[in-house]
Amino acid sequence: MHVNELETPSVLIDLDKMMANIQRMQAYCDSLGVAFRPHIKTHKLPQIAQMQLEAGAVGIACQKTTEAQVFLEAGFKDIQIPYNIVGQAKTRRLAQMAATPGVKITTAADHVAIVDGLAQAASDANVTLHVLADMATSIQRTGAQPKDIVTIAKRIDAAPNLEFAGLMVYPSDASIRPALLETLTLLEQAGLQVKNISGGGTGGALEAAQVPELTELRVGTYVFYDWTCVVKGWTSIDNCAMRVAATVISTPSSDRVILDSGRKSIASDTIDGGYGHLVEYPDAHIYALSEEHTHVDVSRCDRKPMIGERVHIIPVHTCVVTNLHNQIYGIHGEQVEVVWQVAARGMVW
Amino acid sequence: MHVNELETPSVLIDLDKMMANIQRMQAYCDSLGVAFRPHIKTHKLPQIAQMQLEAGAVGIACQKTTEAQVFLEAGFKDIQIPYNIVGQAKTRRLAQMAATPGVKITTAADHVAIVDGLAQAASDANVTLHVLADMATSIQRTGAQPKDIVTIAKRIDAAPNLEFAGLMVYPSDASIRPALLETLTLLEQAGLQVKNISGGGTGGALEAAQVPELTELRVGTYVFYDWTCVVKGWTSIDNCAMRVAATVISTPSSDRVILDSGRKSIASDTIDGGYGHLVEYPDAHIYALSEEHTHVDVSRCDRKPMIGERVHIIPVHTCVVTNLHNQIYGIHGEQVEVVWQVAARGMVW
Repeated sequence: MHVNELETPSVLIDLDKMMANIQRMQAYCDSLGVAFRPHIKTHKLPQIAQMQLEAGAVGIACQKTTEAQVFLEAGFKDIQIPYNIVGQAKTRRLAQMAATPGVKITTAADHVAIVDGLAQAASDANVTLHVLADMATSIQRTGAQPKDIVTIAKRIDAAPNLEFAGLMVYPSDASIRPALLETLTLLEQAGLQVKNISGGGTGGALEAAQVPELTELRVGTYVFYDWTCVVKGWTSIDNCAMRVAATVISTPSSDRVILDSGRKSIASDTIDGGYGHLVEYPDAHIYALSEEHTHVDVSRCDRKPMIGERVHIIPVHTCVVTNLHNQIYGIHGEQVEVVWQVAARGMVW
Repeated sequence: MHVNELETPSVLIDLDKMMANIQRMQAYCDSLGVAFRPHIKTHKLPQIAQMQLEAGAVGIACQKTTEAQVFLEAGFKDIQIPYNIVGQAKTRRLAQMAATPGVKITTAADHVAIVDGLAQAASDANVTLHVLADMATSIQRTGAQPKDIVTIAKRIDAAPNLEFAGLMVYPSDASIRPALLETLTLLEQAGLQVKNISGGGTGGALEAAQVPELTELRVGTYVFYDWTCVVKGWTSIDNCAMRVAATVISTPSSDRVILDSGRKSIASDTIDGGYGHLVEYPDAHIYALSEEHTHVDVSRCDRKPMIGERVHIIPVHTCVVTNLHNQIYGIHGEQVEVVWQVAARGMVW
C-alpha cells in the first residue's frame, strides 16, 4: 500500500531510519563496553524490542508492570522495571512474572518501604526479585541520597527472596558522578557488591563516557527520536524516524492553516513554545493544539499549504504519541511495509 | 467492588455528580429554549451519550468520522460532526453513514473546497448530507468571515445532495454576536434560510443568553468538568465528576512526593503552571509530569503524603484523559458500579 493511501492522522515509522538508530546506539554502547537495555515505553511493541535484542541488547526495560506482562507473554526473559512498584496487586504481578521459568525480573527501590513490599511478595510466591537501589539525580524525581542508598541496599540484601542488583540512575548524565562515587564508596565500606550500575536517558547516554562506572544504559526515545531531541541537540532531524501524517483541513487566513491532528493524536507536549516540526514547511510554527486541530502559523512560509494537502509532523515527544494510537505504520520509502498494533498501549498499571 | 480495590492510576467517574451535570445543563438549555446536543469527544461512550439523550438532548456531536461510526453502530440516529471533513475516505464514510435508514448526518464547512468534497461523496452515494457553514470566532481556529459564509451557504444550497443546515460557531461566547448578526443579514439578503445556529463550548454556553439567535448548544466537557473549568470559573470543584486515583510511590524529600500517574494517564495539558488538582492536599502543587510520574510540591501542606497512600487528581483536561484509558470506572460513593470500555478511544480518523 502506498503511504498516502493511509488516512490521516497516522503515525509513520521510517524503518530504515529506525534500524539505523537501533544499530548506532548498540554500536555506541559496544564501543563503551556497557550493556544496552532498550526502554520499550517509546514503542510499546514486542516486534521492535525483538529487533533491538537481535542488534545486541541484553534485555528490556519497562515502566509499568502491565507493560512488562505484555512483553513477558511475547517471550521476553530479562525484564527490568526501573520504578518503585507499590501495592499488593503490582508486587504480586511482579512476583508472578518472576515465577515463569527462565525469566529474570529486576525492579528498583528508593525507600525501605518499597523494599519491604517487594520482599513480602517475593517471599509469598517463593521467587527471587532482583532490586536496584534508585539514586537521586539532578532532575529531582525519585531516588535516594547516598547514605540512604546503603540502608536500602542492606535491606534488599537482607531479604531472603530479594537480590541486590546494584544501582539505578536516571538520567545518567555527567553530573551524577560525584554522588555515584560517594555511593559506591559507602556501599563498599558496607561490604555490599554492586553488580550493575544502570544509567539511562537519550540525553544522558551521550555523556556515558564521562561516567565510566556505568555498566548498562537504558534508553527509549533514541529508537524514533523526536523534536525535543533535535531542539536539545541530541540528534539531527534526519534521524527522526517517526512522523505523523496530517491533512490541511482549513486555511482561514493567509497566515494560518489548521491540520486534522491534535492533542488526541500528537499529544499536548510542547517545547520552546511549539508543538512539533512541520517537515514540508520548516518555517512554519505549530503554535497551538486543540483536541483534533493543529494550529499552524505559516506567515513566514513563501509557499502556503492548501486544503487537502498532506503534511508530516515530527512530534515533540514520540513516547506519548505511540501511546495514543491503536496502530502505527512501518514504512519503507513510500510503501507501508507493516501495520503494528501497539500491544502495550494504555498499560497504565 | 470497593473503589480502593482498583489499581492506580484509574479514572473514576462519580455517577451522581455526572448525572447532576447532565440534568443541570439540559435544564439550562431548556430554560433558554435552545436544543442541547452533547459533544461525545469528552467521554467517547455510547452509554453516557444515551443518558444525555434520555435527559432531553436532541442528538450528539462527534469530532471525527470514526467516532461517529462507533455511535452509529450503537444506535444513535442524529449525529453532527462540526468539523471540516477532508479526503475521499472520510467523505465516503460520512455518506455511507447517511445511507443508514433513519440516520441524519450533519457536518460543517468553512470553505467551498470542503463543500465540493461533501457534494461529490453525497452524490456518489445518492444520500443527503446536512451542512452547516462554520463562522470564524475570536479563537481563530477554523471558520469563515461573514461574506464568505454567504458564498459557502450558496454552494451548499446549490448542491443537489447537500442541504444547508445553518451556522456553526465555536465557541459561541457573547463576542460572536456582531459577526453573527452581520452574517444573518447577508444570508437573508441572499434568500437563504438559516434553520439552525449551533453554538458550543462549556464556557461559551454560560453566555448563551447574550446570543439569543442561538438555536442549539454543543457542549462536551460539562459532563465531567475539569480543573481548567474550575480555574476559568465555569464551575465549582464540587461538580468535577472525574478524578484519577493515584498512589504515592516516592517521598524523596520533605517538599516533594511522586505519584504513579503521568503524561500517559492524566495527559500533558497544563493550566496556570499546574497539571491538575490534588483533592486530598489542596495546598499541594502538581508542578511537573514525566510519562509515568506526577511530581508534586507539598511544601505548603501541613500533613505530608506517605508512600502507598492513595490520592485523587482532578485533571486539567478530562477529554484527553478519557482518550488515554482503555476503561474508566463509574462509582457511586465508594463502590464501583460500572466498568466502561472507552468505545471510541483512539478513533482519530
